[in-house]
Amino acid sequence: MTEIIVQKFGGTSVGTVERIDAVAEIIKDASKSNNIVVVVSAMEGETNKLVGLANHFSQSPDKREFDALVSTGETVSSALLAIALHAKGINAKSYSASQISMKTTDSYSKAKILDIDANKIMEVVGQNTIPIITGFQGITETGDITTLGRGGSDTTAVAIAAQIGAKRCDIYTDVDGVFTTDPKVVPNAKKLDSITMEEMLELAGQGAKVMQTRAVEFANKYKVPVRVLSSFDEGDGTLISLKDDGMENALISGIAFQKDQVKFTLHGVGDIPGTAFKILGPISEKDIEVDVIVQNVSVDGKTDFTFTVSKDDESDVKDIIEEIKTEVEFKDLMINSDIAKVSLVGVGMRTHAGIASKAFKALSENDVNIQIISTSEIKITMVIDKSLVEKAVQVLHEEFELDK
Amino acid sequence: MTEIIVQKFGGTSVGTVERIDAVAEIIKDASKSNNIVVVVSAMEGETNKLVGLANHFSQSPDKREFDALVSTGETVSSALLAIALHAKGINAKSYSASQISMKTTDSYSKAKILDIDANKIMEVVGQNTIPIITGFQGITETGDITTLGRGGSDTTAVAIAAQIGAKRCDIYTDVDGVFTTDPKVVPNAKKLDSITMEEMLELAGQGAKVMQTRAVEFANKYKVPVRVLSSFDEGDGTLISLKDDGMENALISGIAFQKDQVKFTLHGVGDIPGTAFKILGPISEKDIEVDVIVQNVSVDGKTDFTFTVSKDDESDVKDIIEEIKTEVEFKDLMINSDIAKVSLVGVGMRTHAGIASKAFKALSENDVNIQIISTSEIKITMVIDKSLVEKAVQVLHEEFELDK
Repeated sequence: MTEIIVQKFGGTSVGTVERIDAVAEIIKDASKSNNIVVVVSAMEGETNKLVGLANHFSQSPDKREFDALVSTGETVSSALLAIALHAKGINAKSYSASQISMKTTDSYSKAKILDIDANKIMEVVGQNTIPIITGFQGITETGDITTLGRGGSDTTAVAIAAQIGAKRCDIYTDVDGVFTTDPKVVPNAKKLDSITMEEMLELAGQGAKVMQTRAVEFANKYKVPVRVLSSFDEGDGTLISLKDDGMENALISGIAFQKDQVKFTLHGVGDIPGTAFKILGPISEKDIEVDVIVQNVSVDGKTDFTFTVSKDDESDVKDIIEEIKTEVEFKDLMINSDIAKVSLVGVGMRTHAGIASKAFKALSENDVNIQIISTSEIKITMVIDKSLVEKAVQVLHEEFELDK
Repeated sequence: MTEIIVQKFGGTSVGTVERIDAVAEIIKDASKSNNIVVVVSAMEGETNKLVGLANHFSQSPDKREFDALVSTGETVSSALLAIALHAKGINAKSYSASQISMKTTDSYSKAKILDIDANKIMEVVGQNTIPIITGFQGITETGDITTLGRGGSDTTAVAIAAQIGAKRCDIYTDVDGVFTTDPKVVPNAKKLDSITMEEMLELAGQGAKVMQTRAVEFANKYKVPVRVLSSFDEGDGTLISLKDDGMENALISGIAFQKDQVKFTLHGVGDIPGTAFKILGPISEKDIEVDVIVQNVSVDGKTDFTFTVSKDDESDVKDIIEEIKTEVEFKDLMINSDIAKVSLVGVGMRTHAGIASKAFKALSENDVNIQIISTSEIKITMVIDKSLVEKAVQVLHEEFELDK
């Protein structure tokens, strides 16, 4: 039997009828050599339009109804894509989450996939018909409609690929693949032909925005090879490989950066066990994601505790710190939103000492002061002044010869 | 237990977020004294927008996909209405055809209802929650999405009312009820407080357009009392009663008219058995609806055969007549699209002779020439020149004192 490839098309890829037509051509071509299963997002702008309608009635609309509403965008694009394929003489049928029993938890707007009816999908494939499945959607055990959260279509695609044992999951988007860094900042940034799952996870988490982090985690967990490529231009994109291929790895694969964060520093905190939890517990309870967390060794029983969160959460975090003031003693609270995060990512980093010092040296020689440093096995994160981020990325890109 | 009323809101009634808000108020009010089940159409213009998208790819898009596409409009409005009700503190949940197992035949775009899961609806009602059900939608036995055809939401509402044993089905629309004739033509046309199902059927079929004919037939068959009323203005609307209430009926309930028809006359047809079938057979095979059919007694073995069809079907009918020319001998074919149809409708007509002659006299005194006459037990249909239709309706409205 021919192998199966899952193709996923995002909102910009199906943003207009002309784009849907172009996507239908891509599918038609691919269907000549493989069995194809398609997952599709809503047409660009549609979901926002639906959210706008809901917000007319309430800023926090009923969650069950909100999901029923916003999930219609994917139903529209899947049916239109099937119509476009029919017009080209290709058998295709659209399927909603309900029709392929895409079961999820009942956490509306951030549901987690529990199960998929792989037999139903394979039955359609067996009839020489391309299933066009709505991304983003799910249903609960009782048949209520859920959604997986923004960008959830990537996760839908990877989950389906895992469930039906697809050879590969191709994520079509509006970029050519994964780059060493943002080409807008470093014009000679290079497209990577391949990258490991781990590297991709670190990059995606850092806002590389090529593919949703959750979907990469899913692919990693279920060992689904993923390719990220453009639906606008020809090219092979970037293959996200399951593991280190044993060959000598590049020291650094890419540089990620992010500017929409705010840094909180609690200065002069008593170095008492449980302090970190007292600070971060109430924050995570409110589902606020904390990114970098740094605490230095204490001097005279006092230390500084620093963490960053998304700018959207700034006022919530302020309120929380106000509340815990009595429980956690500290001298000053410093808040800085003029910061940026720059990260070097690379599996090769593991076995090569000196990467960090090389980076720090290059930055200091170019007058970029590093405020915070945080490292993992395959990543070095530096928080710097926001005005210096472009310069820092360019310096590092050149230092590690990523354009070569 | 409190009785149940099914309320159906059409596309203009939920055409904007402001309108949805107004409809939510109507439902909230009604829910104080009765259990309410709501059926809702797509927001005005939405279905046409979706059809436009499909037509970009094909003028005859794949039927299964077309239905999946256009049915999303109702899902959007049902979820929005539920959100609006929640915002007013009312428990409501949207349900798609799939979620209440609204089973239909698999005739896409003109599916017929087979069964509805009344228990599911009653379960929701039992939880003090108002079910907001998508009109127009259905699903096949295998779970494919179907639609009932334009205006099908009326049928959905009546079918649900029948299935759950509702006290009444209220059809909310953009007119105050059923009028003696079109108020645009006769300014003192009178709103009827009640009308019989039979009269309503004759009026609807004639394009009175207040309520879909199929829905009236359904209501008649399953004995569901229906009320037609405005969602824009207060008022009791028109009650469509199940039967003649035994009291003296008005002679004439209303006057309907229609201008979008074309008249075909086959002049000098041989009066041979089977001729009518030879002409109309191929036409009905193509699903073209023939309206008035008139054949006069023959003179010298020759007769004239006249029928009217919708203007949309004019060229198809021409082609068919061209094809059957060899089988059906006739002298001339006359086609006239400058015609209009005027109908007097009334249950009282049955027992009162002289209605027809009174009508003919009034028209002739006002120089309105009648081209064709066709009658049923409760209807008299006259085909006249299109330019005279307003005059004819006004003359008849006055003659039968419908404004009194």
